[in-house]
Formats: sequence, structure tokens, C-alpha cells
Amino acid sequence: MAADATGALGWQDVAALARARLAARIWPPGAIIPPEAELAREFGVSRSTVNRALRALAEEGWLDRRRKAGTRVAERPVHRATLAIPLMRDEVEAAGHRYGYRLLDREVTATPGLLALQLGMRGVPRVLRLEALHLADGRPWAHEERWISPETAPGVFEADFAAQSANEWLVTHVPCSSVEVSVSAERATGRVAAMLECEDGEAILVVERITRQEGRGVTLLRLSHAPGHRIRSTPG
Amino acid sequence: MAADATGALGWQDVAALARARLAARIWPPGAIIPPEAELAREFGVSRSTVNRALRALAEEGWLDRRRKAGTRVAERPVHRATLAIPLMRDEVEAAGHRYGYRLLDREVTATPGLLALQLGMRGVPRVLRLEALHLADGRPWAHEERWISPETAPGVFEADFAAQSANEWLVTHVPCSSVEVSVSAERATGRVAAMLECEDGEAILVVERITRQEGRGVTLLRLSHAPGHRIRSTPG
Repeated sequence: MAADATGALGWQDVAALARARLAARIWPPGAIIPPEAELAREFGVSRSTVNRALRALAEEGWLDRRRKAGTRVAERPVHRATLAIPLMRDEVEAAGHRYGYRLLDREVTATPGLLALQLGMRGVPRVLRLEALHLADGRPWAHEERWISPETAPGVFEADFAAQSANEWLVTHVPCSSVEVSVSAERATGRVAAMLECEDGEAILVVERITRQEGRGVTLLRLSHAPGHRIRSTPG
Repeated sequence: MAADATGALGWQDVAALARARLAARIWPPGAIIPPEAELAREFGVSRSTVNRALRALAEEGWLDRRRKAGTRVAERPVHRATLAIPLMRDEVEAAGHRYGYRLLDREVTATPGLLALQLGMRGVPRVLRLEALHLADGRPWAHEERWISPETAPGVFEADFAAQSANEWLVTHVPCSSVEVSVSAERATGRVAAMLECEDGEAILVVERITRQEGRGVTLLRLSHAPGHRIRSTPG
């Protein structure tokens, strides 16, 4: 068991002790566990160390923390995994390839009704629609179709997306506060299959992403990945 | 702007102010932002409120927090999305269906070499292999193939998986500390296509999950979802 220079337990140690109590049903599902101050005394650690450990167990889904009611053992823990959403350039380079980007189409268009709904942009009459291809060592990595709102991304109608991907432009121009991701499997057809240079009917991973700034829609993105692509969660 | 009863700003307000500074490049990429104590004075809030706000921005990928070096604006923010991993029963019921479960196969088997590697269970000679079907309103929802280590899940060889899914048994018997998820698109073939009652070649979403307890492998799961399935990230 790792201990710091003073011999005291670290928060990971406290988390391990707590997990053992959960496993042994000393803290059964639905039970209220002892208050932080009591656990701190028992384990001989500071209250903030207990707090950090319980926060980790709550993030893992084992505990429900309520401000007033105390900390309860979850009846049915819901585990969580984290998806990192790196720049496409960084994703391709991390996979050991040379990144490339090609703008296929760009138009300022009347805001599609469904998009206005999904992004909550009813007052936005026109949006920018982009179609682009991301490449790895010159071969198709992902096909992108994207809409961007000029309300939350001022200057987007003037930006040069032939020179720089929307991905990179947005990251440095618009700080977004939330990202929603939806993943499905589809069969590649028509233009997407042609752009990905794969056969019609191949199974491809399609990722849709909605990015918001303080609740207002910035961009909706539909990424069709070349066959064989895999999305992995990141630790922590 | 929401303020509490005392008129002070909340952490969400401080986060919004910080995001505005990032957007305006008052805090440009790579810069070290002012210390928490200074921001607390400036915004008229407690240091813990500033800390909570900066933690949120760090979780969103905008800031890199280093213990000694201070808080730096990320050069290339990596956004994150969270996947909830509910019980299959809860997932099916949340989609408005009646949940069903059928054990298809169960065997205690010599630990496959690749599995031993992936789960870090070199000293575990035998594991339990299960094959099962999850149903929604009596129709196939997902086909499951799973291996469980008796080292980290004691009692697993004796459990009755015809009566209860491994999903539910594990959740109440083994507190796991980490989940790794990998998602891909595949074409359904052979037994999986037959069990999912779909055509050979249909695009299906395949989710692999590795669950660990304190770094030791508990289970590896391969879930093949019926066509049309979608995985959505959860807010926060």
C-alpha cells in the first residue's frame, strides 16, 4: 500500500479500502456510509483525502453523493468511460500517420429545420455547411459533413477552410463548454463510400458531434470513418 | 447571471467569465493564467469557487493544471465526452422496452492466451466463458460473449448465469475500479447474425469492454448490438 513520506495513506489507498468494504457488503447497496470526518479519523487521514477518494468512487458509479443526505451506496452502479475528442490531426498523428486535409465543399445555406432544432438555433437564418476529407498518409481517414452557426462562431463566414480545417479553426476561435457524441454503425453508400474509397455496403463507424457554448449551438458534425476504425476510451 | 442568496457569483458564473477570457484571447493558448487567490479577489468569490470553476474548464480540455507550474491555457484543447455504462436491463428499459435475457452457452475453459494478455491474468489457468442474448420486447438487442476471471470474481464458477446475467451478478458482487471501452463497426456474420436475427453483412456496432479491479482484470466482454443501435454520451 503506497503511503506518503509521513506514512499516511493517500487517497488511492482510502479508495481501495472503501472498495473492499463495498465488495464485502460492509457497505451494502442503498446504505448511507459514515460521514467523511468519521472516515478521516478511522483511516488517520485528512478529510480532504477522504473526500478525494469518495469523489473517485462516485465518478466510478459506486456512490451517490447528495449534499444534504450524505453519501449512499448506489443500488445499481452506472459505470462511466471517457472519450477523448482530440483534433483530427492529433488523432491521425497519434496513430503514426501523416495528416492531410481536403475541403470538398463549402456553402452558406439556409439553416435546415432539423439542425435548428438539434442545435437550438431557431433565430439563426443561415449557417455554414462544409464537406471535407481527413487523410492519413494520403488515404481517406474520415469524411466530414459539418454545419457551423455564425452566432456562436463569429467570423466563420470569412474564415478560409481550404487552408485550415474547421476542427482547428474552431478550437482556437470558439471555446465550447459541452460536447455531445452519438456513435452508430452504418453501411457506406454513394458519395461517402466513394470519398472513403471503400466498397458500397462496408460497415463504417459514424460519429455525430454537437458542440455548444453556454448552451447555444456552435457546430454539428457528422464524421464517417473509413472501415476498420476503432474508438477507445481513455483512462481516468 | 445566477448568484446565490448573498449576491456572490457561483462557480458556473466564474467558469463563464473564464471562458469569455479564453474566447477573447485575454488568456491566449499557452499562457499561465493568474493564481486562484488573485482570481478569487477579482471576482469577489472564495478560492474554492474559483478552484471548482477552473476544474470544470480543465475537464473540458481548456486548461492544463499542474501542481507546481500553475494553470496554463491548453495549446490544443482535447475535449472529452462521457459514456455511461448502465446495466443492459436499464438500457433496454430506458429505451421503453421490456428486458429479456437468455444464456446461450457456459463453459469453464483454459484461459486463452490473448485474453490473459489483455486482462493481465497470466497466473489464471481457467476462466468462465459465457455467451448470452439480451432482448428488448422479445427481440434481439445485443449478443454477448464474455470471459470472467475467478481470481477477481470469486464464486463466479458457482453462480447461476441462466437465472441472472453476468452483468447484474458482477455489479452486485465485484466492485470494479476501471472500465475500458472500444467501439467498432463490423459486418454481422455467422452465429452473431443468426442470433441477432439480421442479414449477413448488416453493419453492427460492436463494443468491447474490459473491467478491472485495482488493475487486475475481472472481465472482458464483447457486445454485438442489433443493427440501428446508437451509443450516446451523457452530459457532464
